[in-house]
Amino acid sequence: MTFLRVYLGESDHCSHEPAYKKIVKLCYDKGIKGVTVLKGIMGFGEKHHVHRVDFFTLSEDLPIIIEVIDEKEKILDLIEDIKKCDFDGLVVYWDVNTIRINKEAH
Amino acid sequence: MTFLRVYLGESDHCSHEPAYKKIVKLCYDKGIKGVTVLKGIMGFGEKHHVHRVDFFTLSEDLPIIIEVIDEKEKILDLIEDIKKCDFDGLVVYWDVNTIRINKEAH
Amino acid sequence: MTFLRVYLGESDHCSHEPAYKKIVKLCYDKGIKGVTVLKGIMGFGEKHHVHRVDFFTLSEDLPIIIEVIDEKEKILDLIEDIKKCDFDGLVVYWDVNTIRINKEAH
Repeated sequence: MTFLRVYLGESDHCSHEPAYKKIVKLCYDKGIKGVTVLKGIMGFGEKHHVHRVDFFTLSEDLPIIIEVIDEKEKILDLIEDIKKCDFDGLVVYWDVNTIRINKEAH
Repeated sequence: MTFLRVYLGESDHCSHEPAYKKIVKLCYDKGIKGVTVLKGIMGFGEKHHVHRVDFFTLSEDLPIIIEVIDEKEKILDLIEDIKKCDFDGLVVYWDVNTIRINKEAH
Repeated sequence: MTFLRVYLGESDHCSHEPAYKKIVKLCYDKGIKGVTVLKGIMGFGEKHHVHRVDFFTLSEDLPIIIEVIDEKEKILDLIEDIKKCDFDGLVVYWDVNTIRINKEAH
């Protein structure tokens, strides 16, 4: 299985909608098995290298991370769709082992 | 070393206790070196594929991620114990390099 | 590319400054491409193995994770600088694939 993480900002938009919500819906519509969205407390990206007097007031646009775990093929296909969204972000992925925990097994 | 992540919901229970607290205690009792619990702001899993009118009101049961870093053997043993808990979740793990930062070294 | 995660506590300090802010500034000054800081809701580390009556009131010092993604050489160099900070923490890193999403491409 492949672990995908999409990094973007809370205020990034894609077709008049917050980009992270758009991507979660996209995952849902494509039948992706699991998606988790995390919000950071601070951060900067390649396009945000603006220096300020108070460095730590930079953050009205907090970082968002979308985590997706699924088969490699589905992840690569999803990345192609994410690329069509109009925002500045970063996509990171790597291979992992997975084990599903099932309630019914007991 | 091995990096383990357990994905579950905030409202998942295991022996009348929130499952994530149960797992943190389990880690503590087994002498696991480090555990961090994160809470997501949105998400869905394999068993939660319920479509709603307002997709984004789904989330009273916010996603929880438990992160554990330890030796592979201890992680695999921990996974066996986690499997005995009665909840629907996902376990993901992969190999990593680790370096400990020690205050005493200075 | 290499994915780096630094685990420390919210109350860890380094030269009279919160260690996590110091590390974010260090990344910024070194021209690191992207940094995200996450805050956990619970956790324990190797040096915090203190047992309490109520296990879950341990957490005034919440766990902080600093995520950095950049070229391996820059990450290894950054780790050397982080080691000079005077706190107890853990550094974890592994190789990943990355794809940049660019607004201009559309």
